[in-house]
Amino acid sequence: MNVNGKHYQSIWFDEAQDAVHIIDQTCLPHKFEILVLQDLDGACRAIETMQVRGAPLIGVAAAYGMYLALKELPEQSAEALSRLQATRPTAVNLQWALQRVKAALEGVAIEQRAEVALDIARQLEREDVAICEKIGEHGASLLAQLWRAKKAKHPDNSVVLNVLTHCNAGALATVDWGTALSVVYKAAAQGIPIHVWVDETRPRNQGAALSCWELAQQGIDHTLIVDNAGGHLMQQGLVDCCVVGSDRTTLSGDVCNKIGTYLKALAAHDNSIPFYVALPVSSIDFALSDGIRDIPIEQRDDDEVSHLSGVDENGELQRVRISPANVAISNFGFDVTPARLVSKIITEKGVYEPSQADLSSLAN
Amino acid sequence: MNVNGKHYQSIWFDEAQDAVHIIDQTCLPHKFEILVLQDLDGACRAIETMQVRGAPLIGVAAAYGMYLALKELPEQSAEALSRLQATRPTAVNLQWALQRVKAALEGVAIEQRAEVALDIARQLEREDVAICEKIGEHGASLLAQLWRAKKAKHPDNSVVLNVLTHCNAGALATVDWGTALSVVYKAAAQGIPIHVWVDETRPRNQGAALSCWELAQQGIDHTLIVDNAGGHLMQQGLVDCCVVGSDRTTLSGDVCNKIGTYLKALAAHDNSIPFYVALPVSSIDFALSDGIRDIPIEQRDDDEVSHLSGVDENGELQRVRISPANVAISNFGFDVTPARLVSKIITEKGVYEPSQADLSSLAN
Repeated sequence: MNVNGKHYQSIWFDEAQDAVHIIDQTCLPHKFEILVLQDLDGACRAIETMQVRGAPLIGVAAAYGMYLALKELPEQSAEALSRLQATRPTAVNLQWALQRVKAALEGVAIEQRAEVALDIARQLEREDVAICEKIGEHGASLLAQLWRAKKAKHPDNSVVLNVLTHCNAGALATVDWGTALSVVYKAAAQGIPIHVWVDETRPRNQGAALSCWELAQQGIDHTLIVDNAGGHLMQQGLVDCCVVGSDRTTLSGDVCNKIGTYLKALAAHDNSIPFYVALPVSSIDFALSDGIRDIPIEQRDDDEVSHLSGVDENGELQRVRISPANVAISNFGFDVTPARLVSKIITEKGVYEPSQADLSSLAN
Repeated sequence: MNVNGKHYQSIWFDEAQDAVHIIDQTCLPHKFEILVLQDLDGACRAIETMQVRGAPLIGVAAAYGMYLALKELPEQSAEALSRLQATRPTAVNLQWALQRVKAALEGVAIEQRAEVALDIARQLEREDVAICEKIGEHGASLLAQLWRAKKAKHPDNSVVLNVLTHCNAGALATVDWGTALSVVYKAAAQGIPIHVWVDETRPRNQGAALSCWELAQQGIDHTLIVDNAGGHLMQQGLVDCCVVGSDRTTLSGDVCNKIGTYLKALAAHDNSIPFYVALPVSSIDFALSDGIRDIPIEQRDDDEVSHLSGVDENGELQRVRISPANVAISNFGFDVTPARLVSKIITEKGVYEPSQADLSSLAN
């Protein structure tokens, strides 16, 4: 992705420093800061506190975490694995990436473990970039269809294609490109005039803080809205399609994504608006068929709801409590959108129906 | 309503001071402050800046605004009326209350106008209290039915009745009691163990700031959630019904309420959960049949989305910008929930189906 005119990834390995670098996403949009992960603690903290977040990115970060752990204590591979596994419960990529490292470490001599983990992490990083680019290309063809249809109705060129997205499934949620926003970037690169409605995405405001920042950096027209607004915009004909990501996808096509996604899918369905979900095949959990019943939903700290950070009139970052003191709070991080509300699933392998019949071909 | 053990209304007339008093709702939940409205400017500002808000309450506040205006300039009745009419475009009660004052002023000598306006305002105030109490009683019978059914399935008394509400349709939205929350208060007074899920209600957070505060003051168990969470809670069987208010209701039963209400109604419908809308008959616009097409939706300032106020760790109230600088923002204040998603309409006259056939009997 482009940041102040320079190319960045959300995570990268610096050979000279023998260290892992990340964009610290808890500082955005107010500050752009690079953080160096030195050890297993740093990697776990980065995932837990969401300095890195987004299903694909935390998979890569966890693999690098294994490298950082084994560099120090190569004999404690199992401990490192279970610590990293416990950092975030919902995303399946995290488990998938760690299984990749674990499998590669089997039978490897203790002194070579760190190097093997590093190789896998770098491989996952490269793969993720390629996967996300492919997702963008496949998804852009869907947007191009919508755009051709819309343009045919408005030959005066007065219109743009309005895409609504929830949370951040952008370059910042992956190593680069993103999933949902990769679709937007690739469509824009084809010359489709796109405008993105960005759901704020409470409680952590990743839409406002990350998607708006990222879209601005890439020069894509966008408007910030509160999470409550999407239904009204759809009723009024102001949304042509929704594109979101998924942290975990069942074989039956249920998608588990940031809390609130289900509400937007309901509104899209109610207004006959296509609801596309963009995801890497690694987010599909082929063992699951009922997402609402089977996907564990992470509950996060109350203070994500009660407190928010922002800049005051002097430009200083302040953290304030917005809710009443001592109010009881519930904070589920994700919800499940049943397959019947999903129009298409966009993967690096192509566009699929949200059904076992179609998705099972992706199991290998 | 009870505030720190003492009875308050959201608005009242102080004869000794010859002034209108309001609870300043922009200070809640962090400070409980009483504001004195001295003149037309003060009344308009109170409505525009939402020091008083909620459809029924702004109707009464506008009537008092007429008194304050006519006390100073009794010959400028038309000007005062049109200034007050323009303060908030969506709620129909505001227009309805002002029409009541206007009708009463017809043919009244200039020196008696202020007194007549005051009489009408005080009458509207008393009527609103009685109406809201009645709404609560009628709605409580619906909750009692749900509670009997739930208790029959759980004879061990391990359960409570879970009600989800959006925004603040409580005592603070009316003179006293509220509409949606009056239903909760009356049901709780009957001994039904109630727990309320309170939607935060971005952008202005009236759920977090007002409903949570008000429920705590009345001793009703409640939990604050972000606006994104309700769908997941409904999928998981954690919501027994939704009760919300309405700022404007069509003859066909479409309800216009705080932005995001439509999304919760969709989720309730998708999960076969009753969706009740509690409203005074004065909020019904008998001239309208298609809410989505015909109700003008107020667009409010960007800074409601970009900025939030809260208390810092020193207990000081701070206003911070949470979104990126200079991001484009759209801020619609309301949305329309079509009648097909509404289970029942609760009014002071009884419980109605959301249909012209049933609601037309309320026109007089």
